[in-house]
Amino acid sequence: MISEDKSTVSIADMMDEIGRRARRSAAMLAGSTGEQRDAALRASAASIRQAAGGIAEANRRDLVAAKASGLSGAMLDRLMLDGGRIEAMASGIESIVTLPDPVGRVLAEWERPNGLNIQRVSVPLGVIGIIYESRPNVTADAAALCIKSGNAVILRGGSESFHSSQAIYACLREGFEAAGIAPDAVQMLPTKDRAAVGYLLSSMAEWVDVVVPRGGKNLIKRVQEEARVPVIGHLEGICHVYLHKDADVEMARSIVLNAKMRRTGICGAAETILVDHDAAQRLLPEVVAALQQAGCEVRGDETVVSLVAGAVAATASDWSTEYLDAIVSIRVVDDIKQAIAHIREYGSGHTESIVTTNDAAAEQFLAEVDSAIVLHNASTQFADGGEFGMGAEIGIATGRIHARGPVGAEQLTSYKYVVRGAGQVRS
Amino acid sequence: MISEDKSTVSIADMMDEIGRRARRSAAMLAGSTGEQRDAALRASAASIRQAAGGIAEANRRDLVAAKASGLSGAMLDRLMLDGGRIEAMASGIESIVTLPDPVGRVLAEWERPNGLNIQRVSVPLGVIGIIYESRPNVTADAAALCIKSGNAVILRGGSESFHSSQAIYACLREGFEAAGIAPDAVQMLPTKDRAAVGYLLSSMAEWVDVVVPRGGKNLIKRVQEEARVPVIGHLEGICHVYLHKDADVEMARSIVLNAKMRRTGICGAAETILVDHDAAQRLLPEVVAALQQAGCEVRGDETVVSLVAGAVAATASDWSTEYLDAIVSIRVVDDIKQAIAHIREYGSGHTESIVTTNDAAAEQFLAEVDSAIVLHNASTQFADGGEFGMGAEIGIATGRIHARGPVGAEQLTSYKYVVRGAGQVRS
Repeated sequence: MISEDKSTVSIADMMDEIGRRARRSAAMLAGSTGEQRDAALRASAASIRQAAGGIAEANRRDLVAAKASGLSGAMLDRLMLDGGRIEAMASGIESIVTLPDPVGRVLAEWERPNGLNIQRVSVPLGVIGIIYESRPNVTADAAALCIKSGNAVILRGGSESFHSSQAIYACLREGFEAAGIAPDAVQMLPTKDRAAVGYLLSSMAEWVDVVVPRGGKNLIKRVQEEARVPVIGHLEGICHVYLHKDADVEMARSIVLNAKMRRTGICGAAETILVDHDAAQRLLPEVVAALQQAGCEVRGDETVVSLVAGAVAATASDWSTEYLDAIVSIRVVDDIKQAIAHIREYGSGHTESIVTTNDAAAEQFLAEVDSAIVLHNASTQFADGGEFGMGAEIGIATGRIHARGPVGAEQLTSYKYVVRGAGQVRS
Repeated sequence: MISEDKSTVSIADMMDEIGRRARRSAAMLAGSTGEQRDAALRASAASIRQAAGGIAEANRRDLVAAKASGLSGAMLDRLMLDGGRIEAMASGIESIVTLPDPVGRVLAEWERPNGLNIQRVSVPLGVIGIIYESRPNVTADAAALCIKSGNAVILRGGSESFHSSQAIYACLREGFEAAGIAPDAVQMLPTKDRAAVGYLLSSMAEWVDVVVPRGGKNLIKRVQEEARVPVIGHLEGICHVYLHKDADVEMARSIVLNAKMRRTGICGAAETILVDHDAAQRLLPEVVAALQQAGCEVRGDETVVSLVAGAVAATASDWSTEYLDAIVSIRVVDDIKQAIAHIREYGSGHTESIVTTNDAAAEQFLAEVDSAIVLHNASTQFADGGEFGMGAEIGIATGRIHARGPVGAEQLTSYKYVVRGAGQVRS
């Protein structure tokens, strides 16, 4: 890969070589057994434990540079790896190992009148590109989900976590090699050059089957705009909790508080609360008091401001804002119809919840709200692959073309049709 | 939609209005029942039968113009609608009505330890854009599959079939209106202007969820290059039949003949035959004689040319050519491994078949060949939604991200997660 003249290589040549290796590895992985892939993941986890000192050392280099460049405290926390977090990475890989093999499942099977037997069988997607930001542990999580599902993966971590990610990456490859899986099943871009990301998105459709962006809105926007291959992910999570007129007040309080405040920075956090007009006076005072006590700023429409103390007037832009912060917007609606219309207009198709003791209203909401996840009497913060029992997730997808909702190992597979005959020809 | 100054409207304004109407119709369709959608389709079929004279008249206008512009005989045949073809359109719609409702199926259901009940439920994709060429009957087929699966559809037929398609389109809308389904559930671009297609592909991601191109390679290439929304389809079908050393000679002859010659112009037609070296002398003379007798030109590698009379030498480009004609390329391979490697290098991921009495070899081929459809002892021409028992198809997809293989009404659905709780909040 080194050209003779100046000991440099073009981004394009380097990336094409990575693509070719990934495609070759994907073909080899497709021929591997679930046991072989599990063994490779177990060996990778062991290798991460053994190299914990080296990983922590690499992380210190990243932290020093990040502090010098003035990264915020929240960003530094995301970047930081201590012994506990390194152990959590290893055990996270091991919990992915315990999932059932998502490849080779017979999803459907039928016979045709002419005797042909047809099966729909799950297969890997192929090669997955993952572009992420400062959290170095994504290196281990994401790669493990890809390998579990028989996919080769090309990783591109944030430049501020470059050394940490490289150290984790070395452990993954070591584990694969020990278990007899081609180490090129996982590859990481060896450069911080942003042009490499552009090339990955725009010029590698031959080698990359899908790209998964993991990070903030700017990253995802760039990926969605530039990618010439399918993208799995979501731009934002403007999630709603709708308090129907038949909501229990204690359940309303507890679900809204959890949905908004358990963690404000995740995509499943609620951003807007809708309340039926007939129940606003009964429900809002307790719900808002709980939010305010937890340190949440409340912005509301006219009725809300008139009903509860300390609420400030919401502006039009509030209804379409993903705060990712201790701020909530509250709107009073006439009825369930207006609630659903509000969600259709301002929602992002991610996750919405209805709180009610009225089953007919709940079923209407669950049927008519077309988001990837709709809940009845539960917190929107359950929007998570782990909480769904998928073991782990590579993200939440709001695209309508496969996949949708939490994307775990199973969702990283496609299917093919397997047809068994006895010489049938078509008339 | 008419601006005041010059009684014209920009393509952008017109298309945006179509998009808004489609999105609104999709929301209404999502709230409709399967019975309502079936009633609308039955009414459309009745309307087509009733308007058969008018459709034939519109078709004559198209045919006169097409002949004047020098369209080929094959194209004229695709364009032509007689009484039989019009009746086939109506009964085709009725056969789609008999399919089970693909929307609202519970694809999976499980409970979480905290009591949450989670269902994965099928939902429509939303708005589907269909771009097709000269065959006007696609108007009815494609629209019916979309409505059956609860999707709004925007149609753009070939300019040479403009009047025929408009006449069929009017029947569809009439049927919808009679059955109380918003007629805007199906819309057709009212212009032949190619700029409208460009706008549909590049600037309507807000309103269009997926585009399906139906036509030749140039159309599909354009769509794949310009589309900013997901595309369901395939570029080409370079399909293989592999004659394993344990193939029965009579079955080999009959399957190859059918796979290549039943219809040469469809995507599931075989283009290349691979034969094991150990069985070439036993199998090839009969197989090639049958092909030649049926009028097929045979191009082969050195061994083939030396074994059979009348075979011409294949060049390197033959292995990657979709002839769509009475031409076949034949290559002798060392073993199943080389056959699979050949398919991986030259195939298009569409459909491949192995002929053998050896079950172990068949299972290896079915597992390791990663095409959308893999067959054992059957003709590649079974690659078809009707033959799969799907009633009809909107095309064959080779993309790895949903859908893959024949795309019928069921494959035009996505899913969402429905979660039922009892007040659970996340810890």
